Amino acid sequence: MANATKTPLRVGFIGLGIMGQPMATNILRAGFPLTVWNRTAAKMAPLTALGAHPADSPAALASHCDVVITMVTGPADLEEVVLGERGVIEGAAPGSVLIDMSTMGPTMVRAVAAKLAEKGVDMLDAPVSGGERGAIAGSLVIMVGGPVDILDRCRPILSALGPTIIHCGPIGAGQTVKLCNQVAVALNNLAMCEALVLAAKAGVDPATMIEAVSAGAGASWSISNLAPRILAGDYQPGFRAAHQLKDLRLALDLAQEAGLPLPGSALVSELYSALMAAGQGEEGSQALVKVLEQLGNVGVRKSPLP
Amino acid sequence: MANATKTPLRVGFIGLGIMGQPMATNILRAGFPLTVWNRTAAKMAPLTALGAHPADSPAALASHCDVVITMVTGPADLEEVVLGERGVIEGAAPGSVLIDMSTMGPTMVRAVAAKLAEKGVDMLDAPVSGGERGAIAGSLVIMVGGPVDILDRCRPILSALGPTIIHCGPIGAGQTVKLCNQVAVALNNLAMCEALVLAAKAGVDPATMIEAVSAGAGASWSISNLAPRILAGDYQPGFRAAHQLKDLRLALDLAQEAGLPLPGSALVSELYSALMAAGQGEEGSQALVKVLEQLGNVGVRKSPLP
Amino acid sequence: MANATKTPLRVGFIGLGIMGQPMATNILRAGFPLTVWNRTAAKMAPLTALGAHPADSPAALASHCDVVITMVTGPADLEEVVLGERGVIEGAAPGSVLIDMSTMGPTMVRAVAAKLAEKGVDMLDAPVSGGERGAIAGSLVIMVGGPVDILDRCRPILSALGPTIIHCGPIGAGQTVKLCNQVAVALNNLAMCEALVLAAKAGVDPATMIEAVSAGAGASWSISNLAPRILAGDYQPGFRAAHQLKDLRLALDLAQEAGLPLPGSALVSELYSALMAAGQGEEGSQALVKVLEQLGNVGVRKSPLP
Amino acid sequence: MANATKTPLRVGFIGLGIMGQPMATNILRAGFPLTVWNRTAAKMAPLTALGAHPADSPAALASHCDVVITMVTGPADLEEVVLGERGVIEGAAPGSVLIDMSTMGPTMVRAVAAKLAEKGVDMLDAPVSGGERGAIAGSLVIMVGGPVDILDRCRPILSALGPTIIHCGPIGAGQTVKLCNQVAVALNNLAMCEALVLAAKAGVDPATMIEAVSAGAGASWSISNLAPRILAGDYQPGFRAAHQLKDLRLALDLAQEAGLPLPGSALVSELYSALMAAGQGEEGSQALVKVLEQLGNVGVRKSPLP
Repeated sequence: MANATKTPLRVGFIGLGIMGQPMATNILRAGFPLTVWNRTAAKMAPLTALGAHPADSPAALASHCDVVITMVTGPADLEEVVLGERGVIEGAAPGSVLIDMSTMGPTMVRAVAAKLAEKGVDMLDAPVSGGERGAIAGSLVIMVGGPVDILDRCRPILSALGPTIIHCGPIGAGQTVKLCNQVAVALNNLAMCEALVLAAKAGVDPATMIEAVSAGAGASWSISNLAPRILAGDYQPGFRAAHQLKDLRLALDLAQEAGLPLPGSALVSELYSALMAAGQGEEGSQALVKVLEQLGNVGVRKSPLP
Repeated sequence: MANATKTPLRVGFIGLGIMGQPMATNILRAGFPLTVWNRTAAKMAPLTALGAHPADSPAALASHCDVVITMVTGPADLEEVVLGERGVIEGAAPGSVLIDMSTMGPTMVRAVAAKLAEKGVDMLDAPVSGGERGAIAGSLVIMVGGPVDILDRCRPILSALGPTIIHCGPIGAGQTVKLCNQVAVALNNLAMCEALVLAAKAGVDPATMIEAVSAGAGASWSISNLAPRILAGDYQPGFRAAHQLKDLRLALDLAQEAGLPLPGSALVSELYSALMAAGQGEEGSQALVKVLEQLGNVGVRKSPLP
Repeated sequence: MANATKTPLRVGFIGLGIMGQPMATNILRAGFPLTVWNRTAAKMAPLTALGAHPADSPAALASHCDVVITMVTGPADLEEVVLGERGVIEGAAPGSVLIDMSTMGPTMVRAVAAKLAEKGVDMLDAPVSGGERGAIAGSLVIMVGGPVDILDRCRPILSALGPTIIHCGPIGAGQTVKLCNQVAVALNNLAMCEALVLAAKAGVDPATMIEAVSAGAGASWSISNLAPRILAGDYQPGFRAAHQLKDLRLALDLAQEAGLPLPGSALVSELYSALMAAGQGEEGSQALVKVLEQLGNVGVRKSPLP
Repeated sequence: MANATKTPLRVGFIGLGIMGQPMATNILRAGFPLTVWNRTAAKMAPLTALGAHPADSPAALASHCDVVITMVTGPADLEEVVLGERGVIEGAAPGSVLIDMSTMGPTMVRAVAAKLAEKGVDMLDAPVSGGERGAIAGSLVIMVGGPVDILDRCRPILSALGPTIIHCGPIGAGQTVKLCNQVAVALNNLAMCEALVLAAKAGVDPATMIEAVSAGAGASWSISNLAPRILAGDYQPGFRAAHQLKDLRLALDLAQEAGLPLPGSALVSELYSALMAAGQGEEGSQALVKVLEQLGNVGVRKSPLP
């Protein structure tokens, strides 16, 4: 990674899903030479059309890059693309950097970082919040764990993804902060849903309730952004319910390892599980309201108006 | 209430506690002739020093006023000061208005309104959010139930208390919206507390976590305003834990009457009950974190920094 | 109540519902002269056909009896039949005894006892468990609060209702123990229901699970008695779900007054509330399983057999 | 395993902990030739003193036995002693049987059974309930998954451990039923604990409450067996709190895989987690009451007597 100041960093991007696709696009648009790899090769096409180079394997990708970014589903995927056959570790040069931007809890990122360190490869964990909209808009919040000097080297790339880059501590700390974030989001969602069904069942206009609550101490991103979608009947995912549940369980696993009870998170996890059981995991996380509506035999959109 | 356009409305204020004191002061400062009454007479002194007239009883107060505001603790208090011996109803003239700004659920306000209607006295319910700070600053959010024309007549007075006046529906609707607000606040508080103890127990700096969560989809008034106070060791009440619990139970009572399960509200109610059992009901509602700290054997302020 | 050893005690019975009807019948069959009163007079017919005397009012009934038993729905009913117009208190002679066998929490029974004491009338609270079956079979468990000597005088009557008479403490203590019982029953029911849906969803025969769990440390009255009814599709009430919820809320009210969190009871109360919202409150308390089935999208009776 | 009718089956026992030690002893006393292995070799001494043969490794043990029993802590241990280096699979003859009597959920036992089947070795899963007492007394309840004919062959050995042997279905079904049992036990424990703290805080004698509840519809093994120990201040494990929590989490994992919400189990899991956080995981499962006592600021043993 010599001459970083003169030559732009060569970036590799692995995992071109709903989040990865627009993130990789933003990196390319920011002027970084980009190599991409995706298990389903067809998903590389939009990026190569914009000028990205396709790679045959994570190892091949890594051999051409100063910085490799992974955006995959879970711990098993990260382990495979980094440590598995033809994985990043086989191609990465000493002094190069792996940035995992997926959400998977601190345990696996620490294990992967330790393996990479044996080869002289540095690692950051840098999970994000903001969902697909934030990925497209380049407005993600990025929570970074790892050495500050490595973060500083990679900052120009991350800045193409979002303006808010928060250093959270050593490797894994970004993951821990992300899971705290997911706990907060899930319980704020439950707050929003219980307020909505109470309004509807007790006979006040939910839209008026949203207006009043948003103006004061009950305000949250959830009630400002998700509650109006519910009233509009819009359950399209910003963030999928199934992913919300996956992340909650990662948070509960982390709490379990740490020896910490989280009764509210455990409850909302069971409610999201009910949403999954009803076959609605692919809807947006705001669909949690459907579980409360079913329990209370009430429809938020059908409430009697005042 | 004739000549309302020329003569300023004569206002009476009953209940000069933590909220009532600054609210009455703001009404006086806005130029309304003010009569006050409080069970503990000594609390009238600061207002009379500013020019308010003390009354001997709610009935006497009402006989001198166009609009009477009540700001009391609960349903029993409202019943007593309005319908009890020497109560408002004995002195209020037909065409005058009672505005109850306490939080007590819709049932009692509807009962009181029905009794007042028999005497030709109108009523609004207008509970507020914003706490002591909002009361002092005149920045309360006011949730109003009752006829729009009555609200319009009283709007100049309410405007002295806060810029956000939301008409929620017929009498009682302000209460219902307020209880929805309290449900949202309580669960947002739980979200904030669980995120804090997870950060602390898993070894990241809670202040960094607050910064990251506040920047994205986990944002809430609670995490922006209350979490920093916790880190500063500040448990002074903006809003008392005991009142948070009282309001949650009013919300659960309303849900029960309506036949609605609210599992998250029920859980957080039990956690606030644990805070009461520990003798900490007079602290601010952010003290909920102490219950989570005790359950998890962790101190948010003593977490190892990264 | 002189000559109690020679003349059998004259008994009055107020409240001839599902429980009261067979209880009164058993008292009559045990040889006690019986007077009855019921708000809906027609329900007195089966008893008068057996030889009971109908009364015109609770007061008239009390004037002919040494011991009056009440078996009513809730605190408001007790207050009315004892303290209201033409209530027991107007007819009861000094030295007579009122035994309230309803479930209503300790607060109202203590208030009624204090009023009766002013007239020299003694009182016991003696709620029961065992349901309709126990009432018919004369096998109720009777939890008694009040003075031991009064209990001893009334024991012959109570023995006609059940062999297990437990003195729990002063007036109200029977109620408190009964509410502890209802907490235990409700959570044992939840245990049974969660074990059933887990068996069904994970693909083992629920009947085999019941057999195994009943044989060991998971044994409970609920799993032995209610789970087999669920497998048989039998939701007839032994004990109505609506009453289970009413009693749980009395227990939660008592806990609230005492300053005690009961998180499990609060949760199961919300689940019974969901059952009510679904219109199934008139079914037996075992119908709780329907809420778990709905949440998990699973049918206990339709599980794949091994 | 030829000549099974004439020669007693040669048994191997792996895992001589609190449960394994007395179980192996009972097998030996029933007349079966016994070989033992334990990671900590010293724990073999009491068995070899009674005539058991020590083995150098699981493989060596298996090579001398018709039936090998494992009683280990969790999935990782089973995997190691069966499939790891010098594991059972290296020594076991075709036609021999592995019986895993640990509690670990169905997933790992199914995986191990598939590997063993490749070598012609049969497998049963046969987890038990009854705790250390049941193990010593030979009164365990044994929940068996696997082919009936294999069970029948092994029945003489299992009968030495407990009289109640329940065939639950194919391999893994014993585990599933055992986890249902643990769900029931944990929630019955919570029922017992909430009833106890309510009695204490509301001022009735907990011993009287136990007597009354045990006599009726609130009866459970927990309230009859564990509640009296609590009143005696006896927190010695029958069954360790840490193991109760481990098993609950296995049940919640199974429910998660199956897509099933279990809100009560999730709650009681968090409460056991609080007990662990307080450093009391090595106490008996009845120590759960300490979490409720702490939440409610009440001592069950210090309640005011009536």
